[in-house]
Amino acid sequence: VRRLARKRRGGGEDAATLSLSYKIHIASENNFPTAAGLASSAAGYACLVSALARLYGLEEELSEVARRGSGSACRSMFGGFVQWQRGERPDGTDSLALQVAPETHWPELRVLVLVVSGEKKPVGSTVGMQTSVETSPLLKHRAEVVVPERLAQMMRHIQERDFEGFGQLAMRDSNQFHATCLDTFPPIFYLTDLSRQIIALAHRYNAHHGHTKVAYTFDAGPNAVIFTLADTVAEFVEVVRRSFPPATNGDQFVRGLPVGSAMLSQELVAAVVTEPVPGAVQYILHTK
Amino acid sequence: VRRLARKRRGGGEDAATLSLSYKIHIASENNFPTAAGLASSAAGYACLVSALARLYGLEEELSEVARRGSGSACRSMFGGFVQWQRGERPDGTDSLALQVAPETHWPELRVLVLVVSGEKKPVGSTVGMQTSVETSPLLKHRAEVVVPERLAQMMRHIQERDFEGFGQLAMRDSNQFHATCLDTFPPIFYLTDLSRQIIALAHRYNAHHGHTKVAYTFDAGPNAVIFTLADTVAEFVEVVRRSFPPATNGDQFVRGLPVGSAMLSQELVAAVVTEPVPGAVQYILHTK
Repeated sequence: VRRLARKRRGGGEDAATLSLSYKIHIASENNFPTAAGLASSAAGYACLVSALARLYGLEEELSEVARRGSGSACRSMFGGFVQWQRGERPDGTDSLALQVAPETHWPELRVLVLVVSGEKKPVGSTVGMQTSVETSPLLKHRAEVVVPERLAQMMRHIQERDFEGFGQLAMRDSNQFHATCLDTFPPIFYLTDLSRQIIALAHRYNAHHGHTKVAYTFDAGPNAVIFTLADTVAEFVEVVRRSFPPATNGDQFVRGLPVGSAMLSQELVAAVVTEPVPGAVQYILHTK
Repeated sequence: VRRLARKRRGGGEDAATLSLSYKIHIASENNFPTAAGLASSAAGYACLVSALARLYGLEEELSEVARRGSGSACRSMFGGFVQWQRGERPDGTDSLALQVAPETHWPELRVLVLVVSGEKKPVGSTVGMQTSVETSPLLKHRAEVVVPERLAQMMRHIQERDFEGFGQLAMRDSNQFHATCLDTFPPIFYLTDLSRQIIALAHRYNAHHGHTKVAYTFDAGPNAVIFTLADTVAEFVEVVRRSFPPATNGDQFVRGLPVGSAMLSQELVAAVVTEPVPGAVQYILHTK
């Protein structure tokens, strides 16, 4: 970032911006679990690059710089829907993020992060992905055949704000990513018994409603990311609260954006809340 | 079986064999968990067909009859190493089992079944496999590309009694089968957190010894089937006993063939027995 700033300033110093000779002390803080498959390093690097750019008065797009810290950090430089393009060059300089649609495109879309564990994952995602590339015959097929098709489909669902299509594909693709982890040798497991219970809960909930009201996706960890629409948040949060009754932090169980209260019908509870597991979900983060 | 017997006898009754007009009362008993992914239905059907054939004095090979009860039952009509051939005919009559090598071919090979759960599995294997065929893009690739190659490899490893190759391939293929279950929609999970712990234990044990001493395979359930050689049985059983200390049935923890006792070195224990989970493995069945 400093090198870029030097280039922009053309060698001359400007009293209104920070001197490039200053040393910088960086203190970083993160309010959600790190190394737990919630893309905390991507968020951290994106934030660092963004803060430095503002400090040095840079106004250009810096996803290429962020990518050097953590591959997926380039995606985190944008809001809304972002595609990380593979690129062609061997040095990776064209492996960049591209905004598919801005954050204003689908205002009803909501995200619920079900934080189940702050434990560090057994296999880091960068090393894990390298081992998968080397040993999984299914990953090769996924990358060459399945992903290109699905990427085009997913863009269409986003453009059309088609939650049914978007949610189905998000779930199928999350499952297939974890399938290739299992096909890695030795196998990598990011999903736990609790992740499985959340997956089963989402399918029971959708089956009860007769269509896709919530969709899960899991990154390199057991925490569930749930996509849903604004009108479903309160009801599904109540379903999660009944299914995984909070142990001690009942008042801090839901964090982030406010969530209204919801009454559940007896039919819904009977069909969806089958075997409550107290304390299994630490908290829910509600965000856009 | 009765129809076949009628054909063989050519209509005439023979005083030495059972009359075909007799009604038969069948009482069947099974001494290991059913519907737990241990192929109990295959064993049951194979046993039923075999018993009826003996009753009616039939001496021919009856795997085609057994297959009608349970697909995999045709394999159970033989000892040793058996291949279930896909067949070409639409009615499935040529989808039969073939013995690859007799039970005398590899006398040192042993099987340890780690019974972790007698619970019924959430999805039956027949229905599960149908859903996988319909919804998993990875299963299609596995069936068309990966399995034919691996089948040929596996035959070679068996012919050459190459435990390293046999074990590696058994583990990789078990993992890939479960990967396609996860790629099914909705996903099917037969492996549990405990299965994962057993998988990790096997990899640590092999890593400690620097080569493949044990190999796991999981069918449609969480119970582990461990392949190993006779000289490794006692040591590995002791490793399992230390890793999953029996809760109450210490004296019945190992069943089947006798297992000698083994002393574990401190290095082995330190490297392999990391976090004991008491009571998690119900018992071990030692067989050939």
